[in-house]
Amino acid sequence: MNNKITANIIIIGNEILSGRTIDTNINYLARELTSLGIELSHVRVIADEESEIVDNVRELKDKCTYLFTTGGIGPTHDDITSNSIAKALNLKFIRNKEAELILCNYYGDQINEARLSMADMPEGAKLIENPISKAPGFIIENIFVFAGVPKIARAMFDNIRTLLARGADIHSKSLIFNKGEGLIADMLTKLQKENPQVSIGSYPFFKEEIWGTEIVMRSIDKDKLELVFKEINKLI
Amino acid sequence: MNNKITANIIIIGNEILSGRTIDTNINYLARELTSLGIELSHVRVIADEESEIVDNVRELKDKCTYLFTTGGIGPTHDDITSNSIAKALNLKFIRNKEAELILCNYYGDQINEARLSMADMPEGAKLIENPISKAPGFIIENIFVFAGVPKIARAMFDNIRTLLARGADIHSKSLIFNKGEGLIADMLTKLQKENPQVSIGSYPFFKEEIWGTEIVMRSIDKDKLELVFKEINKLI
Repeated sequence: MNNKITANIIIIGNEILSGRTIDTNINYLARELTSLGIELSHVRVIADEESEIVDNVRELKDKCTYLFTTGGIGPTHDDITSNSIAKALNLKFIRNKEAELILCNYYGDQINEARLSMADMPEGAKLIENPISKAPGFIIENIFVFAGVPKIARAMFDNIRTLLARGADIHSKSLIFNKGEGLIADMLTKLQKENPQVSIGSYPFFKEEIWGTEIVMRSIDKDKLELVFKEINKLI
Repeated sequence: MNNKITANIIIIGNEILSGRTIDTNINYLARELTSLGIELSHVRVIADEESEIVDNVRELKDKCTYLFTTGGIGPTHDDITSNSIAKALNLKFIRNKEAELILCNYYGDQINEARLSMADMPEGAKLIENPISKAPGFIIENIFVFAGVPKIARAMFDNIRTLLARGADIHSKSLIFNKGEGLIADMLTKLQKENPQVSIGSYPFFKEEIWGTEIVMRSIDKDKLELVFKEINKLI
């Protein structure tokens, strides 16, 4: 796994932490990244506070190939993501001319200073197009800065998808065992030890008053995966 | 805000990071904690890896009043939360006699070593009852260790709710503005500066092809909240 490509996500927003809003960006990005062979290894949800954003961006950006952030790039006082990222990277925070033009064209005579502030970005930022509400996201170093509104975050991801290096395809298979996982735990442990190239996950579920287990096998090695699948299929 | 009570959450599970499973524990715990006046200040989603669990538990447990974890306390090889937390706290990892008894009673002649391993906990752990599938969660120091299955995590939270210190009640009000937030951003900034005791959040939404803004005001000071509510109501 020399060419492992990894991602981290920082969800920025008090509304997620207070429970007012249910985050849907984590799962969307997780599925999309997995489908590209990129391993999502760590996610954080943090408050709209400058020191939180600065510290967490600094810490995570060097731990992964790509860092994604969502939230806090609108026009109001609680939108401090762009400025905080500039600080985290020790970059100037300047008005991006290209973004300014997009906003002026879109808002026409409804443009104002608050809306223009959405064009303020770390120096050197490359824009990510926003087909929904126009105010762009941006890329700086290995950081992709998206809006928090899920519709917009998804559109932005679509617009940068082809820029991402792909990891090796991760194949997966799953099996349903209609009993509790405790009955096959020992055998799964043994199989996992014998087949380190395949990641075996065991997930209990409770449906129609019955406990069952979904066993998920994942690997970049299709043959090994098939082998483990057959072994587990025999077991259950 | 001297008596601020804070919480952090660590969601442990490869299935969340791969996108296979949509986490619902974050939002559930966020809402419950908020209703108790406890501020959820930070959330992480991490992999089922010992070093990840050890490092993140060590880092976060001293940064909050209460640390909650979900996931990884079942009977299979990928359930390593309890052992990793013992390591994080430099505690012995031993079989809890009370938990052993619960499991033996529940499973009867279906008991086996894998199922019994769910009674292995850091020394000194206090059990959290699990009315659904019996295997208990536990409390050790300021850490509450829950199962990942949402139904069980919720039942476990219900069982420890009265043990938590309550913070000051956080009151909240909200208003809908049927236009983009950029039109009132300047006024909101001014109001936020003048009323630091009230946290003003501005959340754009897109419904039936129309952009609107929900303005959410939160404070432990009811009078200040009412004042800001009236001011914003006048504006929009």
